[in-house]
Amino acid sequence: MAELYRTTRRVEFSETDAAGMIHFSSYFLYMEQAEHELFRHLGTSVLTKDDSGTISWPRVSASCDYSRPATFEDELQIDVGIARLGEKSVTYQFYFLKDDQQVALGQITSVCCRIAEGQPPRPIVIPQTYVELLKPYITASP
Amino acid sequence: MAELYRTTRRVEFSETDAAGMIHFSSYFLYMEQAEHELFRHLGTSVLTKDDSGTISWPRVSASCDYSRPATFEDELQIDVGIARLGEKSVTYQFYFLKDDQQVALGQITSVCCRIAEGQPPRPIVIPQTYVELLKPYITASP
Amino acid sequence: MAELYRTTRRVEFSETDAAGMIHFSSYFLYMEQAEHELFRHLGTSVLTKDDSGTISWPRVSASCDYSRPATFEDELQIDVGIARLGEKSVTYQFYFLKDDQQVALGQITSVCCRIAEGQPPRPIVIPQTYVELLKPYITASP
Amino acid sequence: MAELYRTTRRVEFSETDAAGMIHFSSYFLYMEQAEHELFRHLGTSVLTKDDSGTISWPRVSASCDYSRPATFEDELQIDVGIARLGEKSVTYQFYFLKDDQQVALGQITSVCCRIAEGQPPRPIVIPQTYVELLKPYITASP
Repeated sequence: MAELYRTTRRVEFSETDAAGMIHFSSYFLYMEQAEHELFRHLGTSVLTKDDSGTISWPRVSASCDYSRPATFEDELQIDVGIARLGEKSVTYQFYFLKDDQQVALGQITSVCCRIAEGQPPRPIVIPQTYVELLKPYITASP
Repeated sequence: MAELYRTTRRVEFSETDAAGMIHFSSYFLYMEQAEHELFRHLGTSVLTKDDSGTISWPRVSASCDYSRPATFEDELQIDVGIARLGEKSVTYQFYFLKDDQQVALGQITSVCCRIAEGQPPRPIVIPQTYVELLKPYITASP
Repeated sequence: MAELYRTTRRVEFSETDAAGMIHFSSYFLYMEQAEHELFRHLGTSVLTKDDSGTISWPRVSASCDYSRPATFEDELQIDVGIARLGEKSVTYQFYFLKDDQQVALGQITSVCCRIAEGQPPRPIVIPQTYVELLKPYITASP
Repeated sequence: MAELYRTTRRVEFSETDAAGMIHFSSYFLYMEQAEHELFRHLGTSVLTKDDSGTISWPRVSASCDYSRPATFEDELQIDVGIARLGEKSVTYQFYFLKDDQQVALGQITSVCCRIAEGQPPRPIVIPQTYVELLKPYITASP
């Protein structure tokens, strides 16, 4: 059985817009923050350094579907699962709920990369330690 | 033959992150800004008022695929087309190029809505004036 | 003796920039978020409605001095005090600390206003209920 | 006679908030963008590399006073002058106008710094080439 990582996020005033609701782009920040919080929860970080340099997780795709509006000071529940754990990439799914009703459903695919200054990120096979940490959150059947 | 609406956008420092590149969420702001600029180019706005109140275009979905990194002060070319002009919604496609190479490809679906204070946006059939204005940008075959 | 309202805030990746540190503008978001959190802590909100309409607290000035850099995932301690409780405005002081060392010192002056659609905010005398709630946080001597 | 560097900036939807106006923090982004645009206008950049590494201009202080609200799609005129050109720092003044009326007045002090990875920025004497470029914009009397 897959676990979901659950966190919450209150809608800040700067994240709303003149339509009186949360700006659609804010969900992408929430997704990233939930992903990073999950990494910290697992005892690591999305930005780590080892002897060979920096490992980070740039995105190759991000998407979000919006079903209900949220407004200032709403507290959103965010459930994070992993739809696909690939050789070099992870696809996260983010379920946004308000009062037990879904307000949005997002997805981000991050690629494990070596980062060297002045060069584009270079995709690498996800180190086994990360695979073990992330595995319990795989929600999809193979 | 469909037109594309072309605009440009320079990557601002606040839109980069500690990985030294543009933050992935910035593309969603660029897309919205290009959509709004297209509306102004067509002599209207995404936020208009008539006798019955306010018409606006909230999003039901947004997505972006990233193929190449962009960094501070890069000038991106943004070409906007309409992949689908529905009865109540418009699906825009955004082609991001840097030095003639694609860096990202985005999509936003906006729904034409009546906005009344304290109520969720109510989808309406896109008024004919908008249909006429947007039609030339339809890129997909029917 | 004045109280300070204490909260914490972790630096998010989107709040950093290509210099590898937190972007200076992020502190203004943190200040607002701390102010709003204080209002919730006091059982109210910076955006309330009564029979006569909406009361909100737009800013007339904001400033920040930066003494030390902060980076991704740093946890900042934020202490909020009130430097001046005027007839119609409040001046907050925000002390940002990291590992017990000051990283920034900010100030915001908010004016209590009636908000009516399509009109500029109209300053009003701060209602007595807010005065009572905010008083304990006045840090300056008269 | 001092010059002012003039630019314009249209208020984007994402820069507004649920009060229906521009969010106060947006002015700090506009100031930085105007500063960076001035540097490009002068044929250089706020982020340059030479043989000894990277030179950049982190802020030690930023402030803004707000006098009139601005809303979505307003076009703001921004005039930039230099209030003080110090040995290691520059203090810019930003005059924001809408329809010839001042809406905000901002100030940023940037320090010329050597940036080396993993170290805090180290202030340096402003190289003479920058002094010559910036001098014409000094607005204050000595």
